[in-house]
This record gives sequence, C-alpha cells and structure tokens, in this order.
Amino acid sequence: MRTAAQYKTDLEKMKDNIYIGGHQVGRDDPRLGPGVNVISVTFELAQNPDWEDVMTTTSSLTGGKINRFTYLPQSPYDLMQKQKMIRLTAQRVGGCIQRCMGHDALTALSVCTKEMDDKNGTDYHQRFTDYLKFYQQHDLAAACAQTDMKGDRIKRPAEQANPDAYVHIVEKRPDGIVVRGAKISITMAANADEIIVIPTRALREDDKDYAVAFAIPSDWDRIRLITRPVWLRERKGIKAPFCDYGVSDSFIVFDDTFIPNERVFMCGEWDFGRRIALLFADSHRHSYTGCKPAVSDILCGATALVAQANNIDRVSHVREKLSEFAGGAELAYAAGIASALYGEKTSSGTFFPEAVYANVGRRLMGETIYHEFNLLTEIAGGLSVTLPFEEDFYGEQTKSDLDKYIVRNPEITPEDSHRIWRFVENLSASPMAHWYAIAGVHGGGSPIMETITLNAEYDYESKKNIAKYLAGITQNLDQSKLLKEKPNAL
Amino acid sequence: MRTAAQYKTDLEKMKDNIYIGGHQVGRDDPRLGPGVNVISVTFELAQNPDWEDVMTTTSSLTGGKINRFTYLPQSPYDLMQKQKMIRLTAQRVGGCIQRCMGHDALTALSVCTKEMDDKNGTDYHQRFTDYLKFYQQHDLAAACAQTDMKGDRIKRPAEQANPDAYVHIVEKRPDGIVVRGAKISITMAANADEIIVIPTRALREDDKDYAVAFAIPSDWDRIRLITRPVWLRERKGIKAPFCDYGVSDSFIVFDDTFIPNERVFMCGEWDFGRRIALLFADSHRHSYTGCKPAVSDILCGATALVAQANNIDRVSHVREKLSEFAGGAELAYAAGIASALYGEKTSSGTFFPEAVYANVGRRLMGETIYHEFNLLTEIAGGLSVTLPFEEDFYGEQTKSDLDKYIVRNPEITPEDSHRIWRFVENLSASPMAHWYAIAGVHGGGSPIMETITLNAEYDYESKKNIAKYLAGITQNLDQSKLLKEKPNAL
Amino acid sequence: MRTAAQYKTDLEKMKDNIYIGGHQVGRDDPRLGPGVNVISVTFELAQNPDWEDVMTTTSSLTGGKINRFTYLPQSPYDLMQKQKMIRLTAQRVGGCIQRCMGHDALTALSVCTKEMDDKNGTDYHQRFTDYLKFYQQHDLAAACAQTDMKGDRIKRPAEQANPDAYVHIVEKRPDGIVVRGAKISITMAANADEIIVIPTRALREDDKDYAVAFAIPSDWDRIRLITRPVWLRERKGIKAPFCDYGVSDSFIVFDDTFIPNERVFMCGEWDFGRRIALLFADSHRHSYTGCKPAVSDILCGATALVAQANNIDRVSHVREKLSEFAGGAELAYAAGIASALYGEKTSSGTFFPEAVYANVGRRLMGETIYHEFNLLTEIAGGLSVTLPFEEDFYGEQTKSDLDKYIVRNPEITPEDSHRIWRFVENLSASPMAHWYAIAGVHGGGSPIMETITLNAEYDYESKKNIAKYLAGITQNLDQSKLLKEKPNAL
Amino acid sequence: MRTAAQYKTDLEKMKDNIYIGGHQVGRDDPRLGPGVNVISVTFELAQNPDWEDVMTTTSSLTGGKINRFTYLPQSPYDLMQKQKMIRLTAQRVGGCIQRCMGHDALTALSVCTKEMDDKNGTDYHQRFTDYLKFYQQHDLAAACAQTDMKGDRIKRPAEQANPDAYVHIVEKRPDGIVVRGAKISITMAANADEIIVIPTRALREDDKDYAVAFAIPSDWDRIRLITRPVWLRERKGIKAPFCDYGVSDSFIVFDDTFIPNERVFMCGEWDFGRRIALLFADSHRHSYTGCKPAVSDILCGATALVAQANNIDRVSHVREKLSEFAGGAELAYAAGIASALYGEKTSSGTFFPEAVYANVGRRLMGETIYHEFNLLTEIAGGLSVTLPFEEDFYGEQTKSDLDKYIVRNPEITPEDSHRIWRFVENLSASPMAHWYAIAGVHGGGSPIMETITLNAEYDYESKKNIAKYLAGITQNLDQSKLLKEKPNAL
Repeated sequence: MRTAAQYKTDLEKMKDNIYIGGHQVGRDDPRLGPGVNVISVTFELAQNPDWEDVMTTTSSLTGGKINRFTYLPQSPYDLMQKQKMIRLTAQRVGGCIQRCMGHDALTALSVCTKEMDDKNGTDYHQRFTDYLKFYQQHDLAAACAQTDMKGDRIKRPAEQANPDAYVHIVEKRPDGIVVRGAKISITMAANADEIIVIPTRALREDDKDYAVAFAIPSDWDRIRLITRPVWLRERKGIKAPFCDYGVSDSFIVFDDTFIPNERVFMCGEWDFGRRIALLFADSHRHSYTGCKPAVSDILCGATALVAQANNIDRVSHVREKLSEFAGGAELAYAAGIASALYGEKTSSGTFFPEAVYANVGRRLMGETIYHEFNLLTEIAGGLSVTLPFEEDFYGEQTKSDLDKYIVRNPEITPEDSHRIWRFVENLSASPMAHWYAIAGVHGGGSPIMETITLNAEYDYESKKNIAKYLAGITQNLDQSKLLKEKPNAL
Repeated sequence: MRTAAQYKTDLEKMKDNIYIGGHQVGRDDPRLGPGVNVISVTFELAQNPDWEDVMTTTSSLTGGKINRFTYLPQSPYDLMQKQKMIRLTAQRVGGCIQRCMGHDALTALSVCTKEMDDKNGTDYHQRFTDYLKFYQQHDLAAACAQTDMKGDRIKRPAEQANPDAYVHIVEKRPDGIVVRGAKISITMAANADEIIVIPTRALREDDKDYAVAFAIPSDWDRIRLITRPVWLRERKGIKAPFCDYGVSDSFIVFDDTFIPNERVFMCGEWDFGRRIALLFADSHRHSYTGCKPAVSDILCGATALVAQANNIDRVSHVREKLSEFAGGAELAYAAGIASALYGEKTSSGTFFPEAVYANVGRRLMGETIYHEFNLLTEIAGGLSVTLPFEEDFYGEQTKSDLDKYIVRNPEITPEDSHRIWRFVENLSASPMAHWYAIAGVHGGGSPIMETITLNAEYDYESKKNIAKYLAGITQNLDQSKLLKEKPNAL
Repeated sequence: MRTAAQYKTDLEKMKDNIYIGGHQVGRDDPRLGPGVNVISVTFELAQNPDWEDVMTTTSSLTGGKINRFTYLPQSPYDLMQKQKMIRLTAQRVGGCIQRCMGHDALTALSVCTKEMDDKNGTDYHQRFTDYLKFYQQHDLAAACAQTDMKGDRIKRPAEQANPDAYVHIVEKRPDGIVVRGAKISITMAANADEIIVIPTRALREDDKDYAVAFAIPSDWDRIRLITRPVWLRERKGIKAPFCDYGVSDSFIVFDDTFIPNERVFMCGEWDFGRRIALLFADSHRHSYTGCKPAVSDILCGATALVAQANNIDRVSHVREKLSEFAGGAELAYAAGIASALYGEKTSSGTFFPEAVYANVGRRLMGETIYHEFNLLTEIAGGLSVTLPFEEDFYGEQTKSDLDKYIVRNPEITPEDSHRIWRFVENLSASPMAHWYAIAGVHGGGSPIMETITLNAEYDYESKKNIAKYLAGITQNLDQSKLLKEKPNAL
Repeated sequence: MRTAAQYKTDLEKMKDNIYIGGHQVGRDDPRLGPGVNVISVTFELAQNPDWEDVMTTTSSLTGGKINRFTYLPQSPYDLMQKQKMIRLTAQRVGGCIQRCMGHDALTALSVCTKEMDDKNGTDYHQRFTDYLKFYQQHDLAAACAQTDMKGDRIKRPAEQANPDAYVHIVEKRPDGIVVRGAKISITMAANADEIIVIPTRALREDDKDYAVAFAIPSDWDRIRLITRPVWLRERKGIKAPFCDYGVSDSFIVFDDTFIPNERVFMCGEWDFGRRIALLFADSHRHSYTGCKPAVSDILCGATALVAQANNIDRVSHVREKLSEFAGGAELAYAAGIASALYGEKTSSGTFFPEAVYANVGRRLMGETIYHEFNLLTEIAGGLSVTLPFEEDFYGEQTKSDLDKYIVRNPEITPEDSHRIWRFVENLSASPMAHWYAIAGVHGGGSPIMETITLNAEYDYESKKNIAKYLAGITQNLDQSKLLKEKPNAL
C-alpha cells in the first residue's frame, strides 16, 4: 500500500494538463492542495492499526493486503465495512472523501463487463480484471467521469444538435478507439491517479457510439482538465484541520483522445447503457449512505457546539432541532445497512447493494441537506456570516474589543469562542458550504433521480395486490405473489 | 399452538366485565368481532406451512414449537424475523396486528426482572420465567397496559391531587398485592387472554408505590373494561376482508384489585421505573418498524389502485407521490433492521433492539402518517368522502345511474370501480382511518417521546468531538473517543 | 329577507327526488337536518343587528336590503366584507357555511354572460339579471354543480367512451334545451333552493355541446339527487352546537332534463368554457380565504383548549404548534385581502378578486389541512380516538369511574373535561373530521389545481426580466416591462 | 433631495473609524463600494419620474418633497407604498436595500418618544422631531444598531458577568450621557450617514441603564466599526449589475462614547424597553414583507431562466417548483398589505403596521429561504458550483472548449449561456448567497422570534371561545367577545 507521501510524489510527476482561472498549472498548485490532503487521509488511516479492519482487507484477486477503497465487496459485511470506512474518513476530512468514486466505478465495471461477456462472448471482464490487479497493486485512486455536458436535456445523445454533447467514439482502430466530448463536474479528477469514464444514461441503438467505458491516467494525452478548486481562506492564527481540506471539480475535455484496447471496457454495447449507468449510481448511492451521515454528524456537532457557546444547549427547541440530525443521519445509515444486507451476489462475484434501500437513503439526505444547514444557522445566529475577519482578532486596535465581546458562555475562553464561531463560519458560510449543499443535492444523483429509480425498482404491483386483497378484488389477483411476496427486503 | 377457533372459544368462556355504550356485554358482542378476527390471523398464519419460518420458532424454554408472538428474541435474526412477521400479518389485516403488545411486554419483563434480581437479590425473573412457560404452552395473546390516566401532566404520580391518577399499590398482603387506578387507551384488552401491566414513566423514591408490574387474565376480579370498539360499516353486497377487521381500546379500571404474588413482577422498585418503561417502549418501537411500513404499503397500494381507476397512474406528480410511500416505509423498515443488527444481548439472554435506530424509525412514521393519508386523498379526489352509500348501488332507481357513472377507467368494471372507491372510503374516510392516523402518531410513543428518547440516547458528545477536532479545539478533546468512537452503529 | 323558518318551510314543499342508502326520502329526513341548520344560520345572523353591516347590504339591482350571500360585489370593500361574513358564519357552524357556492356561481355568471354578449351579441346577461332579481327577492340559497363525473381523466369530454361523462346538451328545442349527464360531490344540493350548473373545464370546438350553464330548482323534473349526508352521533347528555351542524353531498343525475330558455345562461359557447370554469373557481377560492381560516380558528381553539385540559398549555413545543395555526389562518386571510384590494371591475360591473392572491391563499390551506389535524392530535393525545362512548359516562357501573378519571386539570370540572374531549373527538375523529380534511384538500380545487392556475396567471416573464437585468443580459430584455412592471399587485 | 454623488461625497468626508481585516480604512475602501452602490440606488430612483409616487412624498413636518425612506407613514396607503418601494428597489439591487433600517428606527422612535412623554412628561418627542427635520432636510441614510453582543443568552443585561454585554449608560452629564458596549451584525453601518441605537429586548427595573436610545453620525468619536464586507468576485469580461452590489456588517464598539442630550431619545425608561424593541422589530418585519418577496422574485427569475437554459422549463416538476416561489413571495407580500390595512394610528400620528400580519409574513419567508435556494439548486444542477472560473472562458486553450460545451439550449448563445450560469453561481454559490440565506433567517428577527411575538399578540382566547361555544361549554364563556370579536383583523 502506498503512503500519502508516495501518492503526492506520483501526482507531481504528471504532465500539466490542468487549467485554473485562465492559466495552465501543475498538480502542485496550492489551490489543489486541499483535495490532495483529503485523499492522503485514505492512505494515512490505512496505516493506522486502530482502523486496520475498516481501512484494509485482503484482495480477492491477489491475496495481498489492500486498501479497502481498491477492493470489490464480496459479502454484505464488506458493504457494511465500506459504509463504515466512508463515514469514518468523511468525519476526519470534514465531508467528502472523494476516493469512493473510483471504488464505485470499479464495482460497476466488474459486474457489467461480466454480464456483457455472458451475453455477447466478449472478453471485457478479463481486461477489467487485469486492470483491477494493476489498480490494487499500485494502490491507485481514481475519479469516475460519468456526467456529460448533455446539451438539450430533453433529447437523447444521437438527437443532439451538437453530436459531442455526450462523450462518444469517433474512430475505431485496431489497437484502440478515439473519443470526443466533455464530462463535467468531475470531482477529484485533478488529484486522481486515474479517470474512469462510463456512460451517464440509458441508450438506444442509434446511440451506440455513446456506449463507451474506459480508464486512463489523469494526465493522458489530448485531455484537458478545466478545474475549479474550492478551498477555505487560509487561517492566520488559529489553525484548524477543517481548513486543510477541500475539493476541486473538473470540466474534462476529450479532444479526439486515443484509448488503447486494454483499457476499453465497453464499446458500442448500447443495450448495457442503462445497466452500467445504474450500477455506478446505485453503488455510489450506497456509498453516500456512509458519507452523508458524516456530513450530518459534522453539522450536528457544530450545532451542538455553537449552542453551548450561546449557552442555549438546554433550551427545548434547540434540543428538538439537534435530534433532527440524528433522525436524518441514522435513517440514511440504516438504509445503507439494509441495502448491504439485502444486496445480491452478481455473476461476477461482486456483492452488490440492494437498489431500493440505497435510493431511499440517498434521497433522504439529498432532500434534507439545505434544511440541515438551516438548522445550524438558526442556532448559530447571524454572527456566522457577520463575524469580523480573522485578522481583526489580532489587530492592534481591535483585538481587545473582540476578545472581550466574543465570549458569550463565560466557561469558554475567548480563543475557543473565536475558534467555534470561525468554524461555524467555515462550515456554513464559506465556499465549502455551498459545495456541500449543492453536492448534497446532486452528487450521486439528485432526489428526482432517486425518485425515478425508485419508480422503476419498487414493487408497486405487490402493494396493489395487498390493496386488491383487502378490497375484495380477487379477479386478476396474483394470489401467489400476495402470499409469497417478500414484505420488502426479507 | 392454538387454532383460531380455540382462541375464540377461550374468549367466550370469560366473565362479562366489558362495558360498551352504557351496557355490560360479553366477548361475543359483534362489535368486538373485528378485533377477534385480527388476532385470529396470527393463529391461522402460524398453521400455514408457507410462513412457518416467519410465524413459528422453537421455544428457548421448552424446546417446543411455538408461535413467534410468544417468543423472546435471542439474536438479531430473531428480531428481523419478528419485524417480518409483523409486516406480513399487518398487511393481511389492514394494519395493526395487536398481538405484538404482549410480545414487547414480555421482552421488557424478561430483561428487567433479571436486572432487578441482579441488583437486589429478588426472584422476579424465576416468577417471570414460570409465567412465560405457561404463556407459551397455552399460546396466549396479551395486551400491555402501560398508559395511565396521568392526571396533571406536569406532576409526578406522588404529587397528583388524585392519588389514583396512576395505578399503584394500596395494600401488600402475604399472598399478593392490591392495586388501584386506571389505564387508558389499551388496545386489544377486550379480546386478549391476558393483560400485562407495567409503569408508564420514570419514578422517584416517593413514587415507589407506583412501581408495579403484573399480569392477569383479562376477566380478572375487580377490573372493568370500558371499551370503545372501532369497526367499519358492514358491507351488504360487496364483501371485503378489510371490513372484517377492526380494533377496540379499553379504559381499564383497577378497583382495589388483588394480584397474587406469582403474577407480580415489580413491586416498589422505583429506580427501575424508567428502565421498564423504556424497555417496553423501545421494543414496541422496534415492532412498529414492522407494522408502520405495512400501513404505508396498504396506503401505497390503495393510492396506486385509485390512480389507475382515475387513469392518472402515469402522470408525473402522481408517480412522485407514490414514491413517497416507498421512502417512508423502507426507511422505517431499514431502521428496524439496523436496530436488530446493532441490538445487544441482555443479561437475561433476551436480545434487545438498539434504541437509536428503533426511535428514528418509529418517529419517522409518526411524523408522516397524516401526510400519507393526505397523499391518498390528493390522488383519490373528493369522491372518497362523497361516495353514495353502498345500498344506493343496489337501489331500484339508482343502481343503473351509479353503475354507469362510477367507471372512469373503461378497463375496470363497474363493480371493481365500486370496490376500489369503497375501499378508499373505508381506508381514508372511516372510523378506522381516524384510528390509524391517531394511533400512527401516538401508538408506542408519539414523535415528541422519540425525540426525548433520542436526546437521552444519542451520542451528541462524539459529534461535538468531531466538530472540536475539525475546529482545532484540542483542549478537553477526548482523542480516544474521537479515534475509537464507532461511526454510529458499527 | 327570509327567516330560517321560511327557508325550512320552502324546502319541505319540494318534491321527493333525494335518495339515501337505497331509499327515496323527503327534505325533512333527519339526516339532512344538520345541513339545513347550517344554511339557517345565514338567515338568522342576517336578522341580528350586531352583524347587519357584515351580513346584509343594498341590492345594486333593486335598491332593497338583501342578504350579502345573494349580492354581487361592486368594490374591494364588498369582497372584504364577504370574506368577513364567511369567516364569521363558518366559525358559528363549525366550518363550511355552504351558501357561498351559489354566491360564487352568480358572480361567475354575471361576468361571463356579459362577456359572451359583448362578443357574440347574445342576450344572456339580461336573462341572468332577471334571474338574479328573482334570486335576491326570494332570498334564495343555491348550490353550484360544477364537477362532472369526468370518466377518463386524461381525455376531453368529446373524446370519452361514455359521452355522458360530462353534462351536455342532447337536444335543442324552441323553448329550451335537454341535458344529460351527472355532477358529483355537490355539497348542499339536497338542502338548496336552487342548483346552478356550469362547465368544469376548458373546452374545444368539438366539445361545444358540453358548454352549458343553467339554473333550476333543486327538485326539478328528471333530476335525481343520490345524497350522502355526513352527521355526528347525536349527543345524549351533553348537547353542543357543533353536533347540530353537518353537510351532505349529492351525486346529481340529469336524465334528459328539460331546461327552459330563461334559465339557460350558456349554450354552446365552448370558447368561454375555461373562462366560466375559472371565474367560478377563482371567486370560490377567494371565498375559501374566509372559511378556511375559520376552520383553522376552530382547530386552533380546540387545540388550545385541550392543551389546557392536559395542563400543558405553557409547554414550549405546544406554544410553537399553536402559533402554526396563526400562521396558516392569517396568511390565507391576508391573501384574500390582497386579492380583494387588487381585484378588478369587470365589464358587468361585478368586482372580481385578483387570481394570484386567491390561488396562493387557497392553496396554502389545502396543503396544510392534514397537518393542522395532526397538530391537534399531537396535543390531544390518543384519547381523542379511544374515549369511551358518551353513554358510558352515564352508565350505572361506569359513571363514577369516568367522572373520577377524566379530569386531568383539576381546575376543570368532570363535565367540562368530558365536553372538551368529546368535542375534540367530534372535531378530529368523526365523519365530519374526514369531510373537513378531504374538502380542505379538494373543495374549490385542490392544490394541484391552484398550481396550474398560478402557472397560467403568474407573471414569470417579469421575474425572468429581473434576473436578466441583474445577470447583465440586455438583449431581448423588455426594459419598459422591467421598469414599469408592477412589483406584483401594486 | 441628495443625489447619489452627493451621498458619496459626504461619506468620503468622514473620519476613518472602520477596521477591515486588521487594517484601518476609509469609506472609499473598494470593499465598501458595493454597499455604497446599494444606497445610491435609493437616491437615483428618487430622481426618476417613472417612480416619483413610489420613491418620494411630501414631508408631514416641512411640506417639502422628500425621499420616502426618510418619511413617517401616516396612513395604510403610505405603508403599502413603502412596501412597494422596498420591493422595487430590492429587485434592482439584487436583494437587501438596507436603507429601510433607518426608516424603521425613526418610526419606532416617533411612536415611543411620544408615549414616554405622555406617561412621564419628558420632552423626547420634540427632540426627536427636531432630529427628524434635520434628517429629512439632509436626506440622510441611517443604520439601526439594535442587536447587542448579549453575552449569556439566558441572562438579562443586569445579570451578566460582563456588564458591557449590552450597550448601557455609564455616566450622566449635564449635556449628555456616556455609553459603553458593543452592537453586532449591524448592516450598512459602514456606509451610513447616521447610526440610530435602540435597546434590543424587554428590560426590568435593575436593567434601567440599558434603556438607552440615541442617534450619532457613523464616524462619531470613540466608536469603532469592525466591518466585514461581503462582495462578489469582480467580473472580468461579462459585467453584470448583480456584481456591483453588496453589503457590509459592522461590529460597533462604544468605548465610553459621549452622546449630547439633543440626540438622546431614551435614557433609563426601562419600562419602554420591550415597547421600543418591538416597535422597531414589527415595523422592520413589515418592511421585510417588501424585500423578502423581492429576494424570492430574483430566485424565481433565476430558476426560470436556468430551466430555460437547461431546456426543461416545460417539465412538470419544474413548473411545480417554480410555483412555490409565487406562493412564498405573494403570501408574504399579502401579509404586508393586510398589516398595512389593519394598522393603527398611534398617538404620535405615525401609522403603524398591525403586528400579527407583519409577523406571519416575515416568519414565512424566514422559514422558506433555505428551501428557495434548494429549489434553484435542484433546477440548476451541480454546474452552479463546478462552473470553471470566468477567466477560463477567455483562456487561449480553454475558450473554444467552454464556448462549445456551455450551450445546452441551442437557442441561447454561448455568451448568454455563460451569463446565466455565472449569475446562478453568483446568486446561489457565492458569499452573497450565504449572506442572503442567513440574513433571510435572522434579519429582523428569526422565525423563533416571530413565533414568540405571535404567541404574545395573537388572540388565542377568542379562538378558545369559539371552541367552547361549539363544544357547548357556556360557563365562563365571554359571549360578547364571541359575538363581537373581529374575525381577525376586520
């Protein structure tokens, strides 16, 4: 397993194909540092004996000890350990741990390549397995690039005025393929070792050139990463781990990019478009049942802390609001557990989470994230957005004023009071706050997408059968279904 | 195991201590029939080989095959099977299966009697075990009488103007105790074999006479059941299972009632008042993660069915509303699964569900039940409360009118259209509808009670530790807790 | 103006064309009495000098003093007085005052007949004016029959498999027309003097036979009222005004019914179908901004009263919940005021409420009614649905038990405690409760209908102009609109 | 009336008593510019003949033409024009117009000084009137400094460990008073001509030194403004009005500041502490019924615009979401209209808005602001927070990529597409977004404060009387109240 230092060294060796604010920059650009720090935590904790069971496991391919982020789950327990690992690491970096994207892309490819081969006699699964060995042996961290620019949202890929609105194959050569298009909002691409590309939606036969999946190093030829990093104002006097972490998203342009065959995992199988898109989505939504509770945990802890700073932590309405975080976080986490427990062994051997539970869990958090920020704001008060800048707390003419007045709860020192309010500001009124709110809605699929998935996956017919039975409508009633039907997820 | 017929015969042998609408009645009063029918289903399904694994199990006391409703869970799997059994049976009777009350009271007593003995050297647990053997051998169904009349809600029992506002011991004799007071809103008491009485709240030392738990047959001397049955208007032409089921609640008066020692399971242990109250509540809340999803299933099925009758089942907002049922039911059910999985083995051997998950699951359903009825109403339209009476569908001058106009979806016959609307009326605009809405809020503890439990049980300190860590507040930070803390329920 | 007694006498003279539960009955059927009592209050309060300004006014046609329910508003003040009258009378009858339906139908006809005449040179407006004089002089109370059975909800009238799914003209004669079809869920039809029929939706040219409006006495030849009354269990010992009032809805069958020309107000003008449907809907939604706040007032008062009976009326969460009623009722009432103030004088002289405000007000109450019942339930507790029947409070063996235990707040007598709980039961767990909840969603158009109206009426373009201006998009920006646009309703 | 240029010139003459980020700065600091631009709009529009009626009026003191922001309302119409002016100007500056603070402080002082004089024979009202003449003649813009640092939130001023936690009088001299303390979160103080200071809460007799109100120029001796400005990233290529506007909040330290008698408007009248605090709050909440709808308008317009850019503006769920903005904005605006209409003439002559309507309107917007941002985010998608920086749209290697891919709706040019997404980013994922969200909750009092006010002001007794009447409880029923009671606000 790599160390965090090795990971950084490897990044720095890459070619400069990143653009930020009109300039071409290297992966050592300080604005990318916070994202690098996040991934580093996944290496550091894997070296920590306290968390060995959670962070590491044994490869099903090589028998070697590997980071769990590179591992394909083989059982419900593995899925639950993944959830735990994600909640833990997310708590440590203040939110998104990023590296699960690659994990979920590998999960999706492992299942889908096998199914395509089973149907068509192709050999994608072997290619994929070779790639996975390489990935585990080098302890890599991959971004998953799924979301295309999409163009007109009402039209399918082949119907678009701009044929490049979705990434597609423009040429097939003996040794590989050439692709064109753009993927957007791709988190961690600028600090990933690899980028795994998969389709974003169901496809029809005339969309077959859009059925393409592959993996490349993130500094591959003829791709450009137009990157928007998010970071916090650097602390001057009172350092805090929260400020060390951040994220970046990239607009990835594929400019007639060549992909060698051994890294191509889907090439024209339009009838698997929906399947692979959902495999990634559902695996990723299961991962969200780990990280979103962690985001709630952090918001809950901050709210409880600032309530104490305001000396209102015993007030009735404050207590009720705090319990809302418990409700949100634990319902979503429980959904992940149920999804793990009622998952299924796929033909590839990978154990895959159950879709209904993954989707109800993810959707809940997507629906409540703005409300959770609202709760923190209600308890914190307006100061979270009107707090004087940090430097004023050290200014010659202002330090004594601020030290004197910042204390509300006399049991908390001026410095800790300042630290609490500054953290609340960072958490709820900073660029990271917007990122967490908006990613909380859209990352892994927005609530409307989970609703669509639920409407496809949920067994409404069995519910109608119950209603028919109780209503005395026996004609056309599938009695066996009524009697044998699993009262969901049993 | 008893048959449903034996259960009914046993009921009919009981003394007439029930009062309805000013009259003393027997247990064969037709208004009690719907409640008897509900319990009967628990006997019938236990005889059905299709559901053997769910409905029956092996007694940990006798090794005999018993109805799972009389069994104490010994493992997470047992708790999950209990959930499944409750969801299944609740789907079959249109909602509350009632018999879990006794199960949860037995669970609470099994744990608490052992803990009292361990502390005080008493022998309650042996008494209880003898009682449980008797209960299992006779395949009994018990109500649990917990809620007292309570008097002034702000005062504790010993502070009340009316000392009988809570059930209490008024005399101790060598062979037993004498109790006085009233329990209210006690579901199924009028069609139960037994009534198990436990305290309803935390107690202080001067409340010690209110620390009393015992079990009696439901026709015991010097108790009166003032009973309010709920039932549906009897169908004339189109019979439906939903109309065969119902419920009753009793106001149980203890009028200096003698309880023999062998049936007394707590007698003055005021310091276990909170413990036993919560043991019942939390076990029962776990049971609700089985039955409340079933109520959602029924509402979901009815909504889907009436949407079809209105021919609007493909309309976008209807689909979104249907998916809300999936969200509610499965999040609550998942909470039950997590509660089972992270439960604990108590000193008595009984496996007890984890409190946080049981409470977030139960609370969610208590918060959404009115909204779920609202969803059905939105899709069904005003007809659910303006539908002409059933007899008009057979009246000489009105039959042809109604047969002609009741059809909206031409693929559904007039009779099935009528059945659907009649069922929707029964489900959403009948006395049972109110019972389900109000029991959905209050049964097993209203949302405010779950909030109180959560605020006592949830580990807010660990959340604050995460916040402190991220904020850079290291003084007084319990690092070990931060590092070792279970990211909840691991 | 008529007295209540005269109104009842007039009703009793009518022919028996009502069917309830399979039997033909007269208007003196006791199940219709509660609805008759509601309308009677509108006559009684009009005789009360305390409310003269609110309940009566001067006819714009005859100069005589008339009941305001028969009057066409001529100014914003008139609309505000109408709102006030409705809130007042609704508070007195426990909810729906019913008689506003006729008022709103007359309002719609007054405007639409004039507009049709202006366009087509017809003489509907004179016919209508003659009818209105007759209506005012006889101080009549009319139901409005708008909602058709509708058949397949996705298809328009002319597309239906059953051509009678919407009421339509089947024959034109020199002296009148013959109509066929059924109107459903028609409140108060069975205790109205007159029934006014109007179309329920927008129409196209091939639907022109469905463009028909007329007025008839409610016992007219060849119409049948299949009526479903709603009433409360009669009180035995403790009488209460709330139990004297109720409602009925009728399924009205038009069985080739002849309508004389002087009572026909639309006959084929399909291009005014949407107009008249919305005129009634919007006027009625404005009326709802009077009655729905009254329903909230009653629920609020009951909740405050039962909180006092539970002695929890100073508890923080109870106070917060009470304030939700204030929010709902007064926002809706304010919307009615704004709708009145920004209404417009139509070509007929009738002053018509502004649509956006009427719709946001009505929608709010339709969205919150189930929640308001939920609030009452939360504060009242389970007793509202488990309270023993009234007779048990007088039973020989049960009276002393119930008198003793029903008191929670020692400052309230047993009888008043009983009255409070009984009222809460009547209000929240009775057939009337369902009627109010479901009518609260659907009466006058459900929230989804108001959303559709808002999407048609609200000036989204002006909002987009503001956004374009702020975004710096000046091309295609209608500057004059931006600058002159009314910041809504000014 | 001043011009915007004169206002700026006057600001620049002030002494440098502002501190930002550890440095003492002048009022020409560019970070203060956006706030100055906001106030400038109030001068500019007052010169625009199109808006003369809205923006200007005639002084009740001098008879001269004045800016309405300096005017005391004398009638319901004046209050409605104020609302209109605020909605208009807020739409133009992208949100908070700031200058209403001074208006509401003057309103509160006008009423309270008269009432204190009437009770105590003081001459505050004359002092105030002199000040107001000066204010109107110079067309001034004042901030209102109400919120103290507060210290321990559970304790009153006199009970605090730090006696300076609330601003208070430390010395009385013949010619004035000396005050000490700090006011926080004071919007616009750094770009105001004047600062008006009033108490923030109810006081008891021992708090009498905290009963102090006065007005001073914002660069007065011995006050320090530690200021946190909020501004948007400056646009490089595509300018937009939204980016020209911003805000700053100040932490104002009163360091033994001398206030001359003629500018002191309350000095020890502790029994008017609650009165003046609420007078400002309620007047300001009425002002919010103008500006909060404008914030909704802007969010609504942006959502509609980005829906068009995504070409999903006809999709059903998008339409429903858009209509939520209409619901929020117009209900709040209607509440302001009702508050104006049912306001009252105070003894000072100032016409004051009705409290219940002002509070339900303000509370609604405070409860929904986070949800409104959520709506925009749902429709906009993740791009609002992952959009590449503006410079990348002009970068040599990235311009053509971004121009090509940014277009989703082919009818919108690349530049306008970019403008739309950039505006959405500015509006929903910028420092201003946080300011609007948090100020939307807390500015003028958070929802919990409105709930407290409602619980004090709303006539729950009349609602209980209605319930008692309907329940048949006639003892202790105040019949006259029931009969005469205004069905609220009539």
